[in-house]
Amino acid sequence: MSSWGNAIKISVFGESHGKGIGVVIDGLPAGKKLDMDKIYLQMSRRAPGKDKTATPRLEKDIPEILSGILDNTTTGAPLCTVIKNTNTRSGDYGNILTCPRPGHADYTGSVRYGGFNDISGGGHFSGRLTAPIVFAGSVCRQILEEKNIQIAAHIASIGSINDERFDPVNISAELIQRLTSSTFSLIDTSKEEPMRDVVENCRKQLDSVGGTVECAITGLPAGAGSPMFYGVEGVISSIVFGIPAVKGIEFGAGFAAAAMKGSENNDEFYFDGDTVKTRTNNHGGILGGITSGMPVIFRTAIKPTPSISQEQKTVDLTTHTNTTLSIHGRHDPCIVPRAVPVIEAAAAIAAVNILADVSLL
Amino acid sequence: MSSWGNAIKISVFGESHGKGIGVVIDGLPAGKKLDMDKIYLQMSRRAPGKDKTATPRLEKDIPEILSGILDNTTTGAPLCTVIKNTNTRSGDYGNILTCPRPGHADYTGSVRYGGFNDISGGGHFSGRLTAPIVFAGSVCRQILEEKNIQIAAHIASIGSINDERFDPVNISAELIQRLTSSTFSLIDTSKEEPMRDVVENCRKQLDSVGGTVECAITGLPAGAGSPMFYGVEGVISSIVFGIPAVKGIEFGAGFAAAAMKGSENNDEFYFDGDTVKTRTNNHGGILGGITSGMPVIFRTAIKPTPSISQEQKTVDLTTHTNTTLSIHGRHDPCIVPRAVPVIEAAAAIAAVNILADVSLL
Amino acid sequence: MSSWGNAIKISVFGESHGKGIGVVIDGLPAGKKLDMDKIYLQMSRRAPGKDKTATPRLEKDIPEILSGILDNTTTGAPLCTVIKNTNTRSGDYGNILTCPRPGHADYTGSVRYGGFNDISGGGHFSGRLTAPIVFAGSVCRQILEEKNIQIAAHIASIGSINDERFDPVNISAELIQRLTSSTFSLIDTSKEEPMRDVVENCRKQLDSVGGTVECAITGLPAGAGSPMFYGVEGVISSIVFGIPAVKGIEFGAGFAAAAMKGSENNDEFYFDGDTVKTRTNNHGGILGGITSGMPVIFRTAIKPTPSISQEQKTVDLTTHTNTTLSIHGRHDPCIVPRAVPVIEAAAAIAAVNILADVSLL
Amino acid sequence: MSSWGNAIKISVFGESHGKGIGVVIDGLPAGKKLDMDKIYLQMSRRAPGKDKTATPRLEKDIPEILSGILDNTTTGAPLCTVIKNTNTRSGDYGNILTCPRPGHADYTGSVRYGGFNDISGGGHFSGRLTAPIVFAGSVCRQILEEKNIQIAAHIASIGSINDERFDPVNISAELIQRLTSSTFSLIDTSKEEPMRDVVENCRKQLDSVGGTVECAITGLPAGAGSPMFYGVEGVISSIVFGIPAVKGIEFGAGFAAAAMKGSENNDEFYFDGDTVKTRTNNHGGILGGITSGMPVIFRTAIKPTPSISQEQKTVDLTTHTNTTLSIHGRHDPCIVPRAVPVIEAAAAIAAVNILADVSLL
Repeated sequence: MSSWGNAIKISVFGESHGKGIGVVIDGLPAGKKLDMDKIYLQMSRRAPGKDKTATPRLEKDIPEILSGILDNTTTGAPLCTVIKNTNTRSGDYGNILTCPRPGHADYTGSVRYGGFNDISGGGHFSGRLTAPIVFAGSVCRQILEEKNIQIAAHIASIGSINDERFDPVNISAELIQRLTSSTFSLIDTSKEEPMRDVVENCRKQLDSVGGTVECAITGLPAGAGSPMFYGVEGVISSIVFGIPAVKGIEFGAGFAAAAMKGSENNDEFYFDGDTVKTRTNNHGGILGGITSGMPVIFRTAIKPTPSISQEQKTVDLTTHTNTTLSIHGRHDPCIVPRAVPVIEAAAAIAAVNILADVSLL
Repeated sequence: MSSWGNAIKISVFGESHGKGIGVVIDGLPAGKKLDMDKIYLQMSRRAPGKDKTATPRLEKDIPEILSGILDNTTTGAPLCTVIKNTNTRSGDYGNILTCPRPGHADYTGSVRYGGFNDISGGGHFSGRLTAPIVFAGSVCRQILEEKNIQIAAHIASIGSINDERFDPVNISAELIQRLTSSTFSLIDTSKEEPMRDVVENCRKQLDSVGGTVECAITGLPAGAGSPMFYGVEGVISSIVFGIPAVKGIEFGAGFAAAAMKGSENNDEFYFDGDTVKTRTNNHGGILGGITSGMPVIFRTAIKPTPSISQEQKTVDLTTHTNTTLSIHGRHDPCIVPRAVPVIEAAAAIAAVNILADVSLL
Repeated sequence: MSSWGNAIKISVFGESHGKGIGVVIDGLPAGKKLDMDKIYLQMSRRAPGKDKTATPRLEKDIPEILSGILDNTTTGAPLCTVIKNTNTRSGDYGNILTCPRPGHADYTGSVRYGGFNDISGGGHFSGRLTAPIVFAGSVCRQILEEKNIQIAAHIASIGSINDERFDPVNISAELIQRLTSSTFSLIDTSKEEPMRDVVENCRKQLDSVGGTVECAITGLPAGAGSPMFYGVEGVISSIVFGIPAVKGIEFGAGFAAAAMKGSENNDEFYFDGDTVKTRTNNHGGILGGITSGMPVIFRTAIKPTPSISQEQKTVDLTTHTNTTLSIHGRHDPCIVPRAVPVIEAAAAIAAVNILADVSLL
Repeated sequence: MSSWGNAIKISVFGESHGKGIGVVIDGLPAGKKLDMDKIYLQMSRRAPGKDKTATPRLEKDIPEILSGILDNTTTGAPLCTVIKNTNTRSGDYGNILTCPRPGHADYTGSVRYGGFNDISGGGHFSGRLTAPIVFAGSVCRQILEEKNIQIAAHIASIGSINDERFDPVNISAELIQRLTSSTFSLIDTSKEEPMRDVVENCRKQLDSVGGTVECAITGLPAGAGSPMFYGVEGVISSIVFGIPAVKGIEFGAGFAAAAMKGSENNDEFYFDGDTVKTRTNNHGGILGGITSGMPVIFRTAIKPTPSISQEQKTVDLTTHTNTTLSIHGRHDPCIVPRAVPVIEAAAAIAAVNILADVSLL
């Protein structure tokens, strides 16, 4: 299913080379003024080939809003946006999957849909389908900003090159502003060059490389989320794993906590004026599935782009034999920079739902 | 919310020191013969103080089945089971939270529920609430076993001591059988002693320690799951994060994939007879959210038990001052061994839903 | 599925002659003081054989609350209540359905569950399963009463004898109080005798009779509900049809509106002080699925009890022949009086969800 | 919410005078060949001004399919269709609701959305939003037809003129074919003239008139649906009340059953060859929420069009005074004929979900 959410539901549609892609956002509160340029900026961060140029406007891929907005303000009715595809299928050609690409959903999708799925450009499994998620997230983000809730992510690593981590108890508005307006979001910008070198080397070797993205949500009030299955970790993870290439998620200290002692991992409470805070934030702003008021912090693992130009072994499903495959065309050797705004968007969609569930929206 | 699932829904209830805990399982297929001893065995693996003794029967904590079963066979009506608490609250004593325990849900729960939540023994946030999950999972597991789908987990690490990993392309029925009948589930049993030493040292230091659990689901047919938000990773993670103390999850190579190149991470396809398989399993049996037919493998990070007997800094919510706290009573210095059957159970509940979603149940 | 609701979910379980029946209510707001006697009173109104005596206390069928309540106050955790059955199955007797009773779910349930459903006393299809609904509704009703939202229903007809209708624009608190504390709820109490005569005649003829129930919800603020599929009519009807024997529902003028002209059916708006009201209420308090602030009014059709002692034609599923059947035992020749509190309960559960959906709870 | 369904979800979007309306259908089975002409025919039956002409093709209102279809065959990915509005808002004019129209959602929508909803032409509450429902229903209908499940409705009454009822145990394929290709669907076509006279008289009197629609689903296998809240009545009613102007629904004998005796209402079972049938069908094909294999039959009450040209009393929300209102423009004095294909469509969407829930799709 490509639908997600309770109070605010998104329904994502489209195939990579079909007529168009888009999203319906149902349940948005009415009366929220939206800044379209901010939406375009976020979509631009995700768009291919935008990285160095950082144009705030998209030349193409302009989302057309069909409903739910009047005078740039939400009407409360479902908001639908459509992005027409320019790179569409050429006629009624065959759609038979012959050789599934390793690491792609070609094979699993073909089994799931009995071979009827649209395989051109990955069809509904394409990374292009994250564009509507960024759109929806940008809308939600603006609603959150009214409540001083901010979301930012950065490239935590590419290959073996690591950025700094967020200071988990103190994330400044300036940093958030800088990260969310960049197409190569880093806390320590000196890491851009070595990271780009890694990517460039992969490109030359016809290879690709993965990385991690760290995301923070600041300003969430304490007491949001619900125990057990609608806890903040579960809600965020269920949407984040909807992003292609995400293979892991951890909150707060995450996997590092598994090697810690309780005396190290427990975060002491203290009063900062009238506010209960913790001096450290190994809990990632979540205890028992419920927000503590500290920043919610999570990291996701992004696998290397499966499309590589090296020859790879695979099967021929028509002849039932083993064979090899070479993927042609230009492929992004590292999607991590472009995954940053997508993960922020997913976090924003999760956050509005978490707030709505406790009547805080 | 303590309800989860679509085709098969569980609704978990209870508080640690209330009258009873339990679960309603709605949507189970009718006509499934259940082996109650197998259910008790799984609950025994999770029960406190069972580890060394490994009694297959529970002396107490016998779940009473109120509905949904006739002649040990599912009727198709909701199955409700209740476990009465023997350690209940003594009268109408005060329920005011004074000093929240670091690392627990005391503070967040108190904010979430305006101070009305039952704080005795952790209330609804208690690890005791995983007992009904194990019950529900044991029921689902038996339904899966009819289809030759097996689930097993093991202690992948405690502190810095690691067990072997599953061979991700070849997990034998014997290994599954051994792991799922143990109370200290390890692939390499020589690691039991050093792990127990770590735990024992923590106990002596009034401290606790975390760990990781690796879980495998074998026998799932290819083509189960749906793209985007009902992908297998999302479905499993949304229930697994309902287990207290889980702070991270990764599928297949997971976070390690983030440091890999595409040429390393991509799993080649080949024909094994008429079956498409992969020679490696970095994808963890899931591509595009959909099963490939290879074992589904995931690891979860379990934080160290927050209840430690060392003095800890916290706040006094009544006086609005900073203070210290010492937690008395016996606490499990490491819950990882007991988390193993809980994670298997969550995986089983997820798996029946994944199969039902594609009409394979 | 026996689960219903979004913000506040109920999960009903149990079979007529099993060990127990009950309900889990998940998502209740914390801190709501519950008056248990009021709950028992409502359950007493539904209980069999209570009509003439009107004891406010149940001798048996005492619901035991296992969780979610502390000091008679909701904790926010799922509330589970169990009613143990005293009339349970006697041992492992055969459960083979031979001759389905006309008008019952015997045949359809047997097909649905492949013959594995518990057929004793109707199993999960039994009217007895409305007891947990009344419990859950009584809890919700008390939450609504805090907001001056009242719910009352009455026997609108039995056979061809009609009670008065509610004055749809003016329903007094006194009337509500009287109706909701009666076991034979009528606006015009002079209709009790002729209605009882109809029922008694049916009993003598080994027959049964149906009727209608009219229900009003007063005090709902304008602006609750959502357009289209979460409109108030859709939400109420989806839970009300979960009550056995309900075969129709209409809101406001309902089917009568179908024979009206627009000029008759449209309700004029006017200002009553600062409040927008309508002079008539053919819209039943709902326009476009959303409350207008006028009383929400609906009527349901209750079919005659299918259990009658007359010989009836049916099939023998074992011999595949046509045959006859006589149902023995005492059966209520008219369930309409006992349906009144059940419908009120369903309306209350619907109403808390409708309010929660618009953050008004 | 304008989203509905579990296994197959629809998400309807659009406002009457916005840029476009449409629907996303998520969860469709892959590989279903769709006949677009059949879809256009159904949309044509609903379209305004089509009645007398009965052109099978729409001149305008052509739905554009953006995704989910390849070579006229479902791909399994979400199907999105968009119908562009030609009658759009002219610029940034004021959207302030002054005088709510009686019987419309103007007032309730304005309260619900704080005055930010798009009021032009009724906005999201407009009857125009049933066009996407007809589209989605037409897709579902074709999937059902593969399984020999047929759906047809007819005008059961307009004002006080009644059509015949369906023979509830014997609905021929010829009748279904005739009804579903008509724009004025009647069993007894001699009623067309008197019904048209009623409508024409209303038009002359600047008034409108309501009616009822009866719908039948044939070919549903026995055993579909679930007890309680996912019973067939509840599922159908929850989507049908999403259609504007529906104020009541009844299944089988419905409200008439309320005046019956059990001996009259109970439907005897008999064997027709190897098939269990009932000689009458007062149960409307549903017992205990589950299909019996007999035709599912329900009737809905459609209120008279609230838009009438007579002067009506209402309020002025800006001056807080009572006032009068005259609605100008052409309005359909009776929407019942056009409601017929909409109700069929809702029934089709319900039916695919009911089948999917029991893995019969």
